[in-house]
Amino acid sequence: MQLTVWNEYHQERSDPRIAAVYPDGIHASVAAGLAEYFGANAGIGTATLDQPEHGLTEEVLAGTDVLFWWAHLRHDRVADEVVERVRRHVLAGMGLVLLHSAINARIAEALLGTSCRMSCWRHGDRELIWTVEPGHEIADGLPNPIELPAGEMYGEPLDVPAPDELIFITGYSGGEVLRSGCGWRRGRGRVFFLAAGHEEYPIYDHPDIRRALGNIARWAAPATPHRVIEARVPNSPEGWWRDAPSVPEPVEGQAR
Amino acid sequence: MQLTVWNEYHQERSDPRIAAVYPDGIHASVAAGLAEYFGANAGIGTATLDQPEHGLTEEVLAGTDVLFWWAHLRHDRVADEVVERVRRHVLAGMGLVLLHSAINARIAEALLGTSCRMSCWRHGDRELIWTVEPGHEIADGLPNPIELPAGEMYGEPLDVPAPDELIFITGYSGGEVLRSGCGWRRGRGRVFFLAAGHEEYPIYDHPDIRRALGNIARWAAPATPHRVIEARVPNSPEGWWRDAPSVPEPVEGQAR
Amino acid sequence: MQLTVWNEYHQERSDPRIAAVYPDGIHASVAAGLAEYFGANAGIGTATLDQPEHGLTEEVLAGTDVLFWWAHLRHDRVADEVVERVRRHVLAGMGLVLLHSAINARIAEALLGTSCRMSCWRHGDRELIWTVEPGHEIADGLPNPIELPAGEMYGEPLDVPAPDELIFITGYSGGEVLRSGCGWRRGRGRVFFLAAGHEEYPIYDHPDIRRALGNIARWAAPATPHRVIEARVPNSPEGWWRDAPSVPEPVEGQAR
Amino acid sequence: MQLTVWNEYHQERSDPRIAAVYPDGIHASVAAGLAEYFGANAGIGTATLDQPEHGLTEEVLAGTDVLFWWAHLRHDRVADEVVERVRRHVLAGMGLVLLHSAINARIAEALLGTSCRMSCWRHGDRELIWTVEPGHEIADGLPNPIELPAGEMYGEPLDVPAPDELIFITGYSGGEVLRSGCGWRRGRGRVFFLAAGHEEYPIYDHPDIRRALGNIARWAAPATPHRVIEARVPNSPEGWWRDAPSVPEPVEGQAR
Repeated sequence: MQLTVWNEYHQERSDPRIAAVYPDGIHASVAAGLAEYFGANAGIGTATLDQPEHGLTEEVLAGTDVLFWWAHLRHDRVADEVVERVRRHVLAGMGLVLLHSAINARIAEALLGTSCRMSCWRHGDRELIWTVEPGHEIADGLPNPIELPAGEMYGEPLDVPAPDELIFITGYSGGEVLRSGCGWRRGRGRVFFLAAGHEEYPIYDHPDIRRALGNIARWAAPATPHRVIEARVPNSPEGWWRDAPSVPEPVEGQAR
Repeated sequence: MQLTVWNEYHQERSDPRIAAVYPDGIHASVAAGLAEYFGANAGIGTATLDQPEHGLTEEVLAGTDVLFWWAHLRHDRVADEVVERVRRHVLAGMGLVLLHSAINARIAEALLGTSCRMSCWRHGDRELIWTVEPGHEIADGLPNPIELPAGEMYGEPLDVPAPDELIFITGYSGGEVLRSGCGWRRGRGRVFFLAAGHEEYPIYDHPDIRRALGNIARWAAPATPHRVIEARVPNSPEGWWRDAPSVPEPVEGQAR
Repeated sequence: MQLTVWNEYHQERSDPRIAAVYPDGIHASVAAGLAEYFGANAGIGTATLDQPEHGLTEEVLAGTDVLFWWAHLRHDRVADEVVERVRRHVLAGMGLVLLHSAINARIAEALLGTSCRMSCWRHGDRELIWTVEPGHEIADGLPNPIELPAGEMYGEPLDVPAPDELIFITGYSGGEVLRSGCGWRRGRGRVFFLAAGHEEYPIYDHPDIRRALGNIARWAAPATPHRVIEARVPNSPEGWWRDAPSVPEPVEGQAR
Repeated sequence: MQLTVWNEYHQERSDPRIAAVYPDGIHASVAAGLAEYFGANAGIGTATLDQPEHGLTEEVLAGTDVLFWWAHLRHDRVADEVVERVRRHVLAGMGLVLLHSAINARIAEALLGTSCRMSCWRHGDRELIWTVEPGHEIADGLPNPIELPAGEMYGEPLDVPAPDELIFITGYSGGEVLRSGCGWRRGRGRVFFLAAGHEEYPIYDHPDIRRALGNIARWAAPATPHRVIEARVPNSPEGWWRDAPSVPEPVEGQAR
């Protein structure tokens, strides 16, 4: 399995409080957690906003089974072209994991269609992350609930489409709640939102969160490596499907 | 709209603390709330466990658009025949609203297929009932959240099928959460679980809960009065649908 | 109920075969069908691509409960600003009905997130439109199946998110199938795709399709007229919800 | 992975036409297909109606990851106790695959809650089994559509709950359609209905169907072997979850 961890990587360089938590960047912690989980069974790369093409070239995405995305303050600096490129790869089968405030990233809005906004916040709050589907592979081996001593409260209503699979709901100290682990299918790909991961606390160093990240990667990965295919108009309408390759293509023809 | 409110109606007669909260029974409060909401637009009846056939004869159910069900300690006293009768009417289009611990009633298990158990409890807890689908008709006119000063904590994991429509999630003071407003379709009918309604507190007298009950009744009611039809084997396989009545029947034929 | 029917309205003016079917435009037939269904209970307007702002000004949308959208060959001529405006109104509660090849419109892609492409086609094919949820209000009063003597085949795989409510599946003469009546929620609004409506045949004059359109309008309309509200950051994080208006706003605050 | 294939196994012994198609019983063909798919990676057993306890003892089910179930004419001979036993194991995590007319088995009704009836039939019909989620692991490596030269038509409306995952829709020569590959979660377990498999034709010998069966087994298997746990009332309400084992139990406590 080939995994790529993308990070905005600004606050860790500009804000000493965040640098103290994640000295090598949030992506380094996420990648380390995935390396622990998969060992030799995965290749893990990283990419960041300030790299050329944000580190997400066609080649990088073509070789990625699951892309993790952490972002917070610079959503508007992600190039339109890269947003569209990532979307095209997700529709072709690449998994995408939206971490924490990446739910407000433009790629989230492009794939989900809603504003992806949520209500209210509070920092430093204890988070109890409850599994509501205990038999789901994403919950495998996790305590119920996962307890994080400090995070950031994100509350309902969260403006996302009803998830195809709702795995986690978080409860906060003020009685607020959030659908904090949501899975959707888009095209041939899968998208997962994991709310945990406020930058002020070492949440991606937490063993339960690391296990969750690994489980999510397994869930989000395509059955076979994805392949982007351009739309085409079938030239044999009556029998197009007889000649179709055994694995159908993601985008087969367009209505005239 | 014809509504029937069913209640176990034991604790209100045997336990002075509950009698003090609901002197005429929980069903009387629910019925009064529905009468406020619908005025002259609904006929409202009640039925209780100790009546013959628990008050739920074929005639009563045939004339009911939505059945409300409150139960707690006497699930095992409901006759098999009545459970099956209610199920048959739901599959034919009657709405069913499971109130509070009625999620553990046998009719819930019969229609949902799971154990319908939930985790843990605490009494006297503040409940914040958050709407997660603010545009849904069941949330119409409700504050977000509804705040109940005291209720009973029911926590995840709640063993129910993923709801077709998840409207409310409740947060409790200990950080526990519950999918507390869940809708399912079964056959031609709709089933809704509203968790609020612990018997120790006058929750069904609360104006927000009364509005929710009315909204739920409107959502759960069939487009036209339901009609139970026995299964039959179509005798004209090739063309059965050409002769079918314009409103298809709930149970049309059985595989040989 | 205020309904607006939008139409590309090019082929009816440029192609004599289409003009013969819909001399006043497809929008006129859809509007006539809705007028039959609702009588005095709805106000019905129309708008077309070549009008200023495509006839879809802020004022028109603000006064629309459900917008019907028919389009085919000129998706790329719809201004970005109008696509975004329609999307904003849907997220705030306006219903949107995508008719036939409008599933390939940019507003469809913007709200659904996928390519919205389908496979293959054949013209002149009989369509059998089967109801799979016979108790659903959208199926109310419809024969099962609806039989259209001639339409256009659209086949699976249709690249849309799994619908929140799947009502119709169409079978074609070659054994092809399509999820042809799909409902989704997006924000506070609802979106419905009805595949029937190829321009070469008078499908919107058909009484069953007219009844379906009316049922869909009722399903898609918001409980109360929608209102677009700009995102804001709540200034009282701990207690924002205590002061919130009784009807929560569609977009409440944004994560910092 | 441990797989058990259960079969009614009456028609193959009593009807020469069926015996000619499946001389060793339908279960033997299904088991052979799974053995091809999994090789040494799975242990595969069989069980039939006329064995003591129908071959489905507590021990057999405890050692089964996925149970395949084929049945047709003898649903009423399956003991109540065995139906309940299978249901308990599914809720605890065992996968269950309902093959063809097993959708009318009592275990289907017990887990799904509806009548599970469908409309109309025709024998000997060509079946085109279309994948509607081409990226789903159950569709991996399958042609789209799978073409079966002869089967039995099952048509909508099929009275089942809306599937959590709809993978296949079949189209028949008369224009009829069926949601023919449906997945549901129940408790910790997964249930799949595959409509293909009429006993008059060697459908389970077909390589595409065999691949589908293997893919379904992988999808339906629990992440870790399932374990049935009796309900218990937690004795430490406030903090029960702190002491809970890392893998939460399927049925944790019951409301008082």
